[in-house]
Amino acid sequence: MVKVSVVGASGYVGGELLRILSRHPDVELASLTSRQYAGEYVHKVHPNLKGVLNARFTGEDALTAASKADVVFLALPHKASVSVVPEIIKLGVKIVDMSADFRLKDPEQYKIWYGYEHPYPELLKKFVYGLPELHRDELRSASYVAVPGCMAASAIISSAPLYRYMSDQIVVDAKIGSSGAGGKPSLSTHYSERYGVIRPYKPAGHRHAAEIEQELSRLAGKGVVVGMSAHAVNIVRGILTTTHIFVGSEVTLQDLWKAYREFYRDEPFVRFMMDRTGLYRYPDPKVVVGSNFADVGFAYDSHSRRIVALGAIDNLMKGAAGTAVQSMNLMLGLDEKKGLDFPAIHPV
Amino acid sequence: MVKVSVVGASGYVGGELLRILSRHPDVELASLTSRQYAGEYVHKVHPNLKGVLNARFTGEDALTAASKADVVFLALPHKASVSVVPEIIKLGVKIVDMSADFRLKDPEQYKIWYGYEHPYPELLKKFVYGLPELHRDELRSASYVAVPGCMAASAIISSAPLYRYMSDQIVVDAKIGSSGAGGKPSLSTHYSERYGVIRPYKPAGHRHAAEIEQELSRLAGKGVVVGMSAHAVNIVRGILTTTHIFVGSEVTLQDLWKAYREFYRDEPFVRFMMDRTGLYRYPDPKVVVGSNFADVGFAYDSHSRRIVALGAIDNLMKGAAGTAVQSMNLMLGLDEKKGLDFPAIHPV
Amino acid sequence: MVKVSVVGASGYVGGELLRILSRHPDVELASLTSRQYAGEYVHKVHPNLKGVLNARFTGEDALTAASKADVVFLALPHKASVSVVPEIIKLGVKIVDMSADFRLKDPEQYKIWYGYEHPYPELLKKFVYGLPELHRDELRSASYVAVPGCMAASAIISSAPLYRYMSDQIVVDAKIGSSGAGGKPSLSTHYSERYGVIRPYKPAGHRHAAEIEQELSRLAGKGVVVGMSAHAVNIVRGILTTTHIFVGSEVTLQDLWKAYREFYRDEPFVRFMMDRTGLYRYPDPKVVVGSNFADVGFAYDSHSRRIVALGAIDNLMKGAAGTAVQSMNLMLGLDEKKGLDFPAIHPV
Amino acid sequence: MVKVSVVGASGYVGGELLRILSRHPDVELASLTSRQYAGEYVHKVHPNLKGVLNARFTGEDALTAASKADVVFLALPHKASVSVVPEIIKLGVKIVDMSADFRLKDPEQYKIWYGYEHPYPELLKKFVYGLPELHRDELRSASYVAVPGCMAASAIISSAPLYRYMSDQIVVDAKIGSSGAGGKPSLSTHYSERYGVIRPYKPAGHRHAAEIEQELSRLAGKGVVVGMSAHAVNIVRGILTTTHIFVGSEVTLQDLWKAYREFYRDEPFVRFMMDRTGLYRYPDPKVVVGSNFADVGFAYDSHSRRIVALGAIDNLMKGAAGTAVQSMNLMLGLDEKKGLDFPAIHPV
Repeated sequence: MVKVSVVGASGYVGGELLRILSRHPDVELASLTSRQYAGEYVHKVHPNLKGVLNARFTGEDALTAASKADVVFLALPHKASVSVVPEIIKLGVKIVDMSADFRLKDPEQYKIWYGYEHPYPELLKKFVYGLPELHRDELRSASYVAVPGCMAASAIISSAPLYRYMSDQIVVDAKIGSSGAGGKPSLSTHYSERYGVIRPYKPAGHRHAAEIEQELSRLAGKGVVVGMSAHAVNIVRGILTTTHIFVGSEVTLQDLWKAYREFYRDEPFVRFMMDRTGLYRYPDPKVVVGSNFADVGFAYDSHSRRIVALGAIDNLMKGAAGTAVQSMNLMLGLDEKKGLDFPAIHPV
Repeated sequence: MVKVSVVGASGYVGGELLRILSRHPDVELASLTSRQYAGEYVHKVHPNLKGVLNARFTGEDALTAASKADVVFLALPHKASVSVVPEIIKLGVKIVDMSADFRLKDPEQYKIWYGYEHPYPELLKKFVYGLPELHRDELRSASYVAVPGCMAASAIISSAPLYRYMSDQIVVDAKIGSSGAGGKPSLSTHYSERYGVIRPYKPAGHRHAAEIEQELSRLAGKGVVVGMSAHAVNIVRGILTTTHIFVGSEVTLQDLWKAYREFYRDEPFVRFMMDRTGLYRYPDPKVVVGSNFADVGFAYDSHSRRIVALGAIDNLMKGAAGTAVQSMNLMLGLDEKKGLDFPAIHPV
Repeated sequence: MVKVSVVGASGYVGGELLRILSRHPDVELASLTSRQYAGEYVHKVHPNLKGVLNARFTGEDALTAASKADVVFLALPHKASVSVVPEIIKLGVKIVDMSADFRLKDPEQYKIWYGYEHPYPELLKKFVYGLPELHRDELRSASYVAVPGCMAASAIISSAPLYRYMSDQIVVDAKIGSSGAGGKPSLSTHYSERYGVIRPYKPAGHRHAAEIEQELSRLAGKGVVVGMSAHAVNIVRGILTTTHIFVGSEVTLQDLWKAYREFYRDEPFVRFMMDRTGLYRYPDPKVVVGSNFADVGFAYDSHSRRIVALGAIDNLMKGAAGTAVQSMNLMLGLDEKKGLDFPAIHPV
Repeated sequence: MVKVSVVGASGYVGGELLRILSRHPDVELASLTSRQYAGEYVHKVHPNLKGVLNARFTGEDALTAASKADVVFLALPHKASVSVVPEIIKLGVKIVDMSADFRLKDPEQYKIWYGYEHPYPELLKKFVYGLPELHRDELRSASYVAVPGCMAASAIISSAPLYRYMSDQIVVDAKIGSSGAGGKPSLSTHYSERYGVIRPYKPAGHRHAAEIEQELSRLAGKGVVVGMSAHAVNIVRGILTTTHIFVGSEVTLQDLWKAYREFYRDEPFVRFMMDRTGLYRYPDPKVVVGSNFADVGFAYDSHSRRIVALGAIDNLMKGAAGTAVQSMNLMLGLDEKKGLDFPAIHPV
């Protein structure tokens, strides 16, 4: 059994980690920390786990929680991870970091996108970007994983097969549910104000663009500039990313089908969601809710010479906790589907 | 391995049965019938099962499908089950019937509530009302199970512990999501019309009242008349039943806590959802979505001498497919939690 | 032109008052107060009024705001109104109070339901309960109006025609949208937690029961005890009240139709929403959203000898601001429909 | 009084026309046709109009209905308008056509986008594209108006001020509620299937692109190619269009503010919805629901040299019925705000 601690276990990502890990056959939970809810039962915050996980949050600091574990998940705000990671590394504990603090390889990018000088630029190389679809082999020998941003995960997975056709400049138009904003109340998440919106909350300058650029540029073998716009829509869970890619010369549908089919042959959690008939002709987050699947698809617009790459995920699963556990499985040499092989719920 | 066929596998209840049974460690799927979708892949209708269950619907009739199985689930409309059950019984196949055709023990009740003379009144006794919380021992030796109506399940489970306090007349005010109405489009389920409603679609005369009367009268040892009102609300999954029970003499909160605690000691899928603090102080279907849990609780109104019994379930799970599989497990001598021990998703 | 001030204009009820009053042909807005948003443009808080009402909130206290007006609307929390009303009365200004502070005629009831000794019991008689359907003549000569609670308004209007059939004890099962909880963020109104609920937030002891008892007892000529249960559902606006009334002897549908028809003949804002065919067979708040209509209807359950009275309103309109303006119109001798004669939006 | 007939009055656009026209001070309704509901009361289909408009649908054909009116609104499916318009023109009746049949000036475009040879290409010039913001003067002397497509209206209004910066190729990423799909039930609009989606129902090839190209090319003075992707989201009413425009050289925020401010100075129904603080910093259809406002705004992404033009409208109002009545007002020499000057509802 692998001992696992979760630091920041009372947030929504923490809750999903507990939902998965509490039923993972090879995992034993060590310390589940929450400053705010220390001493409380887990189900006081994650009511779905009542009768499933009989445990309490601890008020331990990250280092203490990590010291009790073989693997520690850091579900902390940005900049909080970076301050504890070096000490945890000294303990010899494997780390799965959910924050943005170690996602970018180039320290310069932290200045541009996050507005700070990264204090441990040499550590950036030690972290593997936790997207098994692109970094499986590295993850197998990794000790430190940086889990992708949720919208980045959707955009990258869904457009990666098109790397050969990647224009210099692409547009990622993202739509996301409320759970991506976390569990802390504010006016912008007040139900009466948040209900029914199509709110362009970050039409320009979203930080996930940096990760998308990093990964797609690597694949394309050239610099790809990402213009990203993020919208909040009237659901709790789910992301759809619509990535608009202009192509220089005509492509055929066959080329594109082949690109996706080949790229994702045998991927356990990527589904090619394209159908000429029926109701489910393109990816839609509605049909992945609660699961670790990433549904991908595309359309080709010959009029505007544009490929539209579509990605749908559950932001808390494939966009966070699911991918994190999948990465942990790889890191530990386990079947990467362990603890994750349950379907979505439909209809919901 | 137990061979299982599902007749009527393309409906929403059928889909939930497949979600559960496809991952049940002791079950092997035999025939999944659908007249409308015969020959189609299951995921064409149940998109969440893509990559999970690689199977096609068959156009077989109920008898053929049953003949290939040890257990057959009949997810058919009312009055369709009754016409095939006698022949299936001759095959020696165990039956789990999702319809209302064998729920009521007294054939007279079919005239009153369903408007027809039951053609096989002698068979009514052979079917066990499939609520493990009330009929566990009978289910262990049963061959035929009649799965409760979804709102009946919620009302019965949540108010059963109060059988000692049951007045002659109680009110069940039920609120339910859209999936209870099935998958067939109509004006009343057209999104633009159905969205945002609090629609009292059956304020009087709902047929589930008959089942509730049957079960609560049995427990109370006297005739209990149920006045039921059913409302459609703005969700897909979930039921909340609010059962108003007037009491003749003063009761104490301690009495009521004790009644619930004792009645449901060790029930694997019933949670006593009461808390004096925090957000989850009473049952709410939001926190059971996707799971087989039934959350129960109560409030006592000393001003009006009324106990309010609250029950929250996922109508397709504890209200249909979940309870059905739990009953099958019991019937087959398996651990009744098999295939069902996964938590709900939260938030969703 | 009548000069009108709104004290507490930045809340949701305040916003609805401004939406109505800004277009009322006989009204001139004097002072719109908001402690929190003093100095800000109204549209900063009520974005729908951008381009419609070009005004700023003032930080004035209630007395100053009232002194500038012929009529003052007090959209204040409970217990805040009672502290300013006596001084405003001295100014000779007419008062429309949205709080509960003057709704109950019997001061004893404030001890029971609100837990305080009413400081000005003699003033309670001077306030008219602002339900034009029951108190039109009194309102015409009133100077002070206590606007009903939103759920009380729905329950009273929809069951008043049944006063002859009123049993000693009735059940009001209420379902309400989020806007009734106001505009202040909290964990219980955090979108991810509030979305998709059927939350029995006050299954017993809701204070609106006191008003309903007061009004229905008066009509019935005897004490009617109200057992009330309030549920939050997945919408922003709207209330449905389902009132369960047991009858001693058999009644006919004709009796009940006649009772409603006669009671509400010529009421401008009450619609008898009953149809044997089509989609809109009973009241549903979906079709009153944004309007001042109260839709009423009923069902009779001969099995349980129960009349189910159904009422649907927009909680911020007929449940608050709409009824308030209608009462003001009557108090001022104006056509009571003035400023209010616009239809709901459908579908929405 | 102007006599107005509405052909196709039982659809959602027809319902909005009736909501507006029934309260328009200068309009008298002549014939309201509906093949399906001939003889039924209007409120049987449009329940919000109960007690507001006491009228019945007629089964008259378009020509008969038009013959009774000064102005006829054709709320018919595409290709149905084109077959009756020539005859109506002979009657000398003014026409407001809600279909796509006369929106495009170049008959060739009908072959490309609609797949048919336009039978009356010479009539295309007689119809004015009914967007007052761009064609006010023409509308004042028009007899025939082609009302824009709903998503086209949002995209055009919100990006028109940027005509100087228009690149050769732009992307319109549109999000729309269910009412845009009309009132006819189907599997894709079945509530349980439609609820909670972010469904890319037309990721490429949406026909509204043709109108957007026509209008923006005219303004830009060069051919602008529009790549459009349309998504269905979890609301009934509302559109948000996110238009991505790449710019060759650096622009300043001041330039862009100035462009919007100047372009829409004094427009009665366009609001520049930009704020640096507070909750309403960008356009969001939530705050226009039920009104004729078009909210516009922008963001500039210097990283990707991209302007993001944002437009939010109510698809049935500014996207259909509202703009139609505004155009009629202009055509008749009336104040263009007549019948339309009511605010949206918030929160809803």
